[in-house]
Amino acid sequence: MAAGAEEARILDAWHANAQAWERAVREGRIESRRLATDQAILDAVLAHSPRTAIDVGCGEGWLARALAEKGVQVLGVDAVPALVETARAKGGDFRILSYEAIASGALDQRADVVVCNFSLLGGASVDALLVAAPRLLEPGGALIVQTLHPAMAGEPYADGWREGSWVGCGEGFGQAAPWYFRTLGSWVAAFGAAGMDLVQLVEPLHPDTGRPASVIFVAVARQAQPRSPG
Amino acid sequence: MAAGAEEARILDAWHANAQAWERAVREGRIESRRLATDQAILDAVLAHSPRTAIDVGCGEGWLARALAEKGVQVLGVDAVPALVETARAKGGDFRILSYEAIASGALDQRADVVVCNFSLLGGASVDALLVAAPRLLEPGGALIVQTLHPAMAGEPYADGWREGSWVGCGEGFGQAAPWYFRTLGSWVAAFGAAGMDLVQLVEPLHPDTGRPASVIFVAVARQAQPRSPG
Repeated sequence: MAAGAEEARILDAWHANAQAWERAVREGRIESRRLATDQAILDAVLAHSPRTAIDVGCGEGWLARALAEKGVQVLGVDAVPALVETARAKGGDFRILSYEAIASGALDQRADVVVCNFSLLGGASVDALLVAAPRLLEPGGALIVQTLHPAMAGEPYADGWREGSWVGCGEGFGQAAPWYFRTLGSWVAAFGAAGMDLVQLVEPLHPDTGRPASVIFVAVARQAQPRSPG
Repeated sequence: MAAGAEEARILDAWHANAQAWERAVREGRIESRRLATDQAILDAVLAHSPRTAIDVGCGEGWLARALAEKGVQVLGVDAVPALVETARAKGGDFRILSYEAIASGALDQRADVVVCNFSLLGGASVDALLVAAPRLLEPGGALIVQTLHPAMAGEPYADGWREGSWVGCGEGFGQAAPWYFRTLGSWVAAFGAAGMDLVQLVEPLHPDTGRPASVIFVAVARQAQPRSPG
């Protein structure tokens, strides 16, 4: 299946580029992250005053460490062993887990916030992860997803796979991964299909352009609908 | 107050341009409406299979008539008497009501769908109307708002008043009205502040550009949060 092949290529690319990625993050190579989106995701998570958080697709773990510095008890999970090893070496609680494993219930833990920072890159794999998200949330907890702003991500404005690139990430990168573009409407629909409601949408502005550098979705598990008696 | 003056200018402009507007709609002068957004709002409303609807800011009433043709029992309301008179002359149930009046409870009626088609142009007046919207909805009902897509509406990407224009509406128009720009995030926040959750976001594409011609928000009254006993 074509879609399955794309999902596999995402992981292949991260396996192949884990070291270059760790360096890009450590050296602050990605301008939009340095100028806007790193602080924005930190602010979005901390606004919920979480006691606990799960960082899904944590990579080399910068966000988990930044949250831990603020007193949050964080578990970071990622499918790429080299990234998890790097994260562990820098300190903190990290686990190797694929999204498929999380979707099938392998992560038996709940947190006040589940955060996915630019880590939802796939199609069906992400849909399955989202469906599992409510089971990772404490009552009243929030799923917080930062991703490319769909309206700022070029043509065509339609769901589908796009070729990725490491442009702007610095040196040392090899093959790039494809990623699955979703329109804003499709993101809202994906949360709905997973039994969640979008309660907040944050658009961090790039200081140079004044345009959104990303979008942050905050979703909560949908309350059971009250039924009329009888 | 500056903001109050802007709100008043919106109504002034519609009073002054009611006749030109009726003609523009009748003659299908606005390309994006003809090619995309008219059908999109009809589809969005009919997807809810409503028995009843309230068309808030109905103007000369085309949408109310189109919904009535599909068997929906529609009440159209608008603050501009000349538009309501035109709407009545073409047939249907229409009432003159300002948003301020609706906000203060003057519309004692509920419907399966409350629809606002490019009719939420103000700042505080719209916030007040949204707060009143849940009281206009039958249980399970939906508020459906079509508006300019914030990400397609030019700079700056920040809430605030902008000068309007009648460009693309044909001839016979005089003074234009200002309108209050809201970011996507601010729209979601406005629904939240009004006790509603955004459950769907539709982005009708313009067939020529492939970009969103508008955005349609579908919001429902928030369920009361269950409280733990004790």
